[in-house]
Amino acid sequence: MASLLSRRQFTIEWSHCDPAGIVFNPRFFEFFDWGTWMLFEAALGVKPSDLASAFGIVGIPLVDAGARFLSPARFGDVVELTSQVSEFRRSSFDVEHRLLVRGAVAVEGRETRVWAVRDPADSSKIKSQPIPPDVAARFRVQ
Amino acid sequence: MASLLSRRQFTIEWSHCDPAGIVFNPRFFEFFDWGTWMLFEAALGVKPSDLASAFGIVGIPLVDAGARFLSPARFGDVVELTSQVSEFRRSSFDVEHRLLVRGAVAVEGRETRVWAVRDPADSSKIKSQPIPPDVAARFRVQ
Amino acid sequence: MASLLSRRQFTIEWSHCDPAGIVFNPRFFEFFDWGTWMLFEAALGVKPSDLASAFGIVGIPLVDAGARFLSPARFGDVVELTSQVSEFRRSSFDVEHRLLVRGAVAVEGRETRVWAVRDPADSSKIKSQPIPPDVAARFRVQ
Amino acid sequence: MASLLSRRQFTIEWSHCDPAGIVFNPRFFEFFDWGTWMLFEAALGVKPSDLASAFGIVGIPLVDAGARFLSPARFGDVVELTSQVSEFRRSSFDVEHRLLVRGAVAVEGRETRVWAVRDPADSSKIKSQPIPPDVAARFRVQ
Repeated sequence: MASLLSRRQFTIEWSHCDPAGIVFNPRFFEFFDWGTWMLFEAALGVKPSDLASAFGIVGIPLVDAGARFLSPARFGDVVELTSQVSEFRRSSFDVEHRLLVRGAVAVEGRETRVWAVRDPADSSKIKSQPIPPDVAARFRVQ
Repeated sequence: MASLLSRRQFTIEWSHCDPAGIVFNPRFFEFFDWGTWMLFEAALGVKPSDLASAFGIVGIPLVDAGARFLSPARFGDVVELTSQVSEFRRSSFDVEHRLLVRGAVAVEGRETRVWAVRDPADSSKIKSQPIPPDVAARFRVQ
Repeated sequence: MASLLSRRQFTIEWSHCDPAGIVFNPRFFEFFDWGTWMLFEAALGVKPSDLASAFGIVGIPLVDAGARFLSPARFGDVVELTSQVSEFRRSSFDVEHRLLVRGAVAVEGRETRVWAVRDPADSSKIKSQPIPPDVAARFRVQ
Repeated sequence: MASLLSRRQFTIEWSHCDPAGIVFNPRFFEFFDWGTWMLFEAALGVKPSDLASAFGIVGIPLVDAGARFLSPARFGDVVELTSQVSEFRRSSFDVEHRLLVRGAVAVEGRETRVWAVRDPADSSKIKSQPIPPDVAARFRVQ
């Protein structure tokens, strides 16, 4: 069974670029964040801003992220971002992102996030919680 | 005669918002920048990244900007940005931006930019230059 | 009586600059935000993150902002940001910012903010409230 | 022999934080970028903006980056960023970053960058080049 993949096309803006005229690397991590919210909306059918309340969580905070920058993305490039959960574990999961420029992968990204609730013992803290099976199931494509 | 107006719809992202859960004000100025590039592409038919070379300029740098924040834009809001030149002067021009949330104007912005070339007397500097009449003409709608 | 002025020196980073090699304009509004928080900490003696709880407000949201860009700030420039309340009104106030590069004003900014509390009639909204006289007094310098 | 370590203390700003009230992850990659420029200035004694011209390179572009987020950094936190080259290879090198909040490591980051020159065969491209031994030597601490 495959994993749901979401796609978003957009244009690289002047605002995304650095003095070298290419996308400044932290912007890619911002794009990955867009991708994860978009993927969750596609899979779960709830608006990103309703995700927490719909599932009784505080959110899906990031615990690890990384990227390989294979080729630059430049001002004016029309790019495609694809995002897909590569693995669900007990209470954490990995999202893989690819940014394509002219059909070729320019950046490969990954995020590890946790399914997090407020800690009942200390409301200033959060803790991970098992991902409901029906949540994970909705990311599978027959 | 009316002035060409460009529109862009997009969704307010988590990345745009501050701890109050609303768009952090500098992001609106980033949106205005998007709007101006989009408007110039619509009017002149050249990609933003080709604007400078197509017209022999270094760019259209900002000399003044401002915004009124009438109501907040929140994570998940689908917004519409409209951008329009309100006045062309000899070598500078004003762009008016409006950000609509649920059909109501939430933010009014304005930018004053100049048509700039490299200073022939000192290549490390730029200077304004008269805007070609046929450039201004393309922003008029019959 | 003069108005308290706060100063912050910092270096223009690669991350602040656009493909023209100069500070991208929304970053200046981010710097102004830094300046306002810094000024309030200097005047009121409370950490920015404690401001809301210390004064029973939700914050000091922005209702208007603007800037004049007189000369560019470039990667590596050591700049000085000065911030000062120019006027307190009943429930709103103006902050003036100046960014100096090599001793000359490169950017003049202004913000209008309101002293805001949660609306008792609708907790999803905020409303302005009179600024306590002893708050305004602490911004005066004998 | 140890590797030169640079330190920078700063305060987490409102502008760095997301609706959860903690630093938005792409900002950490921006901080890492600050750290690398600061480290190179400390080691080589040239301003970041002069690095390219001083060494005949186009820059030190990023080819890989990653971070582990161990605990959040919040608005108002005074943090310390330490940056250090962990390995120089023929034409690439790794920089390790640590962000400490109240003395404990909150984020561990790493960047892999290359020593890059303009490609003589195609000036629109860049290529890696061996790192001069005297450059690497200046990052060593006796």
